[in-house]
Amino acid sequence: MSLENVLARIDADLDAATDRLIDLLKIPSISTDPAFAADCDRAADWLVADLQSLGVTAQKRPTPGHPMVVGHIEGDGPHLLFYGHYDVQPVDPLDLWDRDPFDPQIEDTAAGKVIRGRGSSDDKGQLMTFVEACRAWKAEYGALPCKITFFFEGEEESGSPSLVPFMQENAAELTTDIALICDTGLFESAVPAITTQLRGLLGEDFTITGPSRDLHSGMYGGIAMNPIRVLTNILAGLQDDTGAVTLPGFYDDVPELSDEIRSQWQGLNFDHKTYLGDVGLKAPAGEQDRTPLEQIWSRPTCDVNGIWGGYTGDGFKTVLPSQASAKLSFRLVGQQDPNKIREAFRTYLEGNLPNGFTVEYRTEKGSPASQMSVEDPAFDKARKALSDEWPRPAAYVGCGGSIPIAGFFKDILGVDAMLIGFGKDDDQIHSPNEKYDLESFHKGTRSWARILAELTK
Amino acid sequence: MSLENVLARIDADLDAATDRLIDLLKIPSISTDPAFAADCDRAADWLVADLQSLGVTAQKRPTPGHPMVVGHIEGDGPHLLFYGHYDVQPVDPLDLWDRDPFDPQIEDTAAGKVIRGRGSSDDKGQLMTFVEACRAWKAEYGALPCKITFFFEGEEESGSPSLVPFMQENAAELTTDIALICDTGLFESAVPAITTQLRGLLGEDFTITGPSRDLHSGMYGGIAMNPIRVLTNILAGLQDDTGAVTLPGFYDDVPELSDEIRSQWQGLNFDHKTYLGDVGLKAPAGEQDRTPLEQIWSRPTCDVNGIWGGYTGDGFKTVLPSQASAKLSFRLVGQQDPNKIREAFRTYLEGNLPNGFTVEYRTEKGSPASQMSVEDPAFDKARKALSDEWPRPAAYVGCGGSIPIAGFFKDILGVDAMLIGFGKDDDQIHSPNEKYDLESFHKGTRSWARILAELTK
Repeated sequence: MSLENVLARIDADLDAATDRLIDLLKIPSISTDPAFAADCDRAADWLVADLQSLGVTAQKRPTPGHPMVVGHIEGDGPHLLFYGHYDVQPVDPLDLWDRDPFDPQIEDTAAGKVIRGRGSSDDKGQLMTFVEACRAWKAEYGALPCKITFFFEGEEESGSPSLVPFMQENAAELTTDIALICDTGLFESAVPAITTQLRGLLGEDFTITGPSRDLHSGMYGGIAMNPIRVLTNILAGLQDDTGAVTLPGFYDDVPELSDEIRSQWQGLNFDHKTYLGDVGLKAPAGEQDRTPLEQIWSRPTCDVNGIWGGYTGDGFKTVLPSQASAKLSFRLVGQQDPNKIREAFRTYLEGNLPNGFTVEYRTEKGSPASQMSVEDPAFDKARKALSDEWPRPAAYVGCGGSIPIAGFFKDILGVDAMLIGFGKDDDQIHSPNEKYDLESFHKGTRSWARILAELTK
Repeated sequence: MSLENVLARIDADLDAATDRLIDLLKIPSISTDPAFAADCDRAADWLVADLQSLGVTAQKRPTPGHPMVVGHIEGDGPHLLFYGHYDVQPVDPLDLWDRDPFDPQIEDTAAGKVIRGRGSSDDKGQLMTFVEACRAWKAEYGALPCKITFFFEGEEESGSPSLVPFMQENAAELTTDIALICDTGLFESAVPAITTQLRGLLGEDFTITGPSRDLHSGMYGGIAMNPIRVLTNILAGLQDDTGAVTLPGFYDDVPELSDEIRSQWQGLNFDHKTYLGDVGLKAPAGEQDRTPLEQIWSRPTCDVNGIWGGYTGDGFKTVLPSQASAKLSFRLVGQQDPNKIREAFRTYLEGNLPNGFTVEYRTEKGSPASQMSVEDPAFDKARKALSDEWPRPAAYVGCGGSIPIAGFFKDILGVDAMLIGFGKDDDQIHSPNEKYDLESFHKGTRSWARILAELTK
């Protein structure tokens, strides 16, 4: 009954584990903003030191961007790799936070205790569930159950620019039997889930320039084409009234769901009214001939993530601006090729620029969608372990978000990834007031102990 | 030959007059931004003191916003009122200025000397041409040529919220024989011009709210309607492919040009290729069945002056934002009613909001277009005076911009306004690096001396 001892140790150590997480959350490791580069470095140092305290040979490994943290510990049985990311999203709009996003605290809420702060759920809290499971295991047995490689990234929230080169250069060191990734959630905050398909992501960040300088809309309004009008026309034309993307060929490589997966997903009884109602929305947008779950997990999308141009301060300025800008992203599925979609978008955009207008792109990397081979027995073992810990049995699910690392493990290392996480839908990741339930942290840690036990049986 | 003496005195005093203007330009009286309220007040004080030095009984007069400056001086002959505004536009984007916008200086350029700084042309430099003409007249004759009322506003660049109430409350004091307004330009930087028709302006500043918080575009992209998409659809639908505004009834009160005015304007040989080419544009936008000059002076328009929503910082954030905002303005002509247009716009906007979305308006005042009665002999006298000063004869022209004050003089005081100014097309008003040609300042001052002489003959 030694697993029981490990679980008991996790229970007894919960307060100390929470304190360690809070310590890590205090570091504002925002990867997308260069002003926080030193903080990203500090978060990496913190993790190196913590892994070393477990007897792991851990190092901060430089990249052209923020460092990776890689650690190894020897052992018998399968060789596992665990991936998480220590960087976090920006915190704006700051005035919508109820507390300093980097002064985290345990809060009592109607739904139980939560750890409130940027990164608590995405992804520092999730990352630490695995580390804490290893700590308890080691304390109980004096060693970890198998050979484990720890691999923490600091650029996940900014498009992972260094990840592919690093994995390619260190492929031999990183190749394992299976990869474990903790950056996903429970299904509808209740059903433990292993994510087996993820949407890809293509970002475009660009500025359209028309007049060589800002103009007075009285002196030029009417005969000077306004870049904001050009931009809004281009963005409005990207989708039809049903929400379908109009780029030629966009749906060519989008597969239909198999009947098996479709019926499995229908069995989850996804409550889209509550899902949308919780965020103040009354009706689902998008393709009306698809179920909401299908839309989120297996249909491609286009969203404008940011738009700006002209005068945006207090009061009014009758300017006809020289430039207008947008950041947009496509979620990709199936075999959609990010490069092909980017080309189709740019052809469309440039075809709609008036004579003399120019566009400048601030290129973002794209990543295709991922699909795991659930035939590997490790998936069934993990599903059993999760079902033992949680009140409801675990399910294979899809994910609307993009975790490019899963595809890279497959493409570069030939390794399948198991995406297991304990986030809840109301964690407000990427939003003000992000939180992680103490239950997610606690039962997440226990889940990993159970999964380690199953995988090394 | 005493007018000649006044003109000679203006020539001799040019350096000192320029120094006085530079002194006034150093005060950052940006009316639209509350942070500069004290500076607006300081500019008003400066003008009160300067008028008092001419023997004018001048006072700073409080309003709910920035103060008015009103001054009176007695005399025989007609009673004239001169209007100008001492407030200036915001200066952003500051990094596009070659110098501190509020540290003005005389610069030598290939086209001659210019006074560089915010407000040099719009409108402090223009305002001071009249004051300097009065100063020279007084120095020569010991008195001004007639009864004059000086009326300076500090809210012209922010929609003149206090102007109408102030004029209504002080109608008896402000009613004169004719009003002179110096806030316009030479035609194509060469032909002295009296502006006899002006477009009106209606601004709308609004925010659309969809989801109650920012969402992760992976978790909600597809089924959650994105407020930026709603906004871009609404803005794109406001105009058709020809640039015509699609609001029902928008063109109901737009008159066709009279043949006489059309042929007069055609005689101006407006060079729209150069006008657009100078600001980097290759082709005129807008209604293709209208001449460019007709479009600017006598056709209504719609322009988005600012747009913002979602993440606009460095890097990328895959957010599906809660809100999206825009500032837009309609230029109005003929009998178009700002209130009717606003209602049509809001009906259109609200009719295109998805179920559950809301809109919040930050209301802007609207003003209708203005048309002067050029039958008043003062118009011909002023045209003669201008033709005497400049190399080419003066013309009656239209103006695409909005100077609501002209309409208010007519509606509230029953007084026609003569709009005479010396700005040039390349003055970059409302843009970085605003300037006023020293020639405009000098010959503008001389022009007013000649006009005063003609009007009081």
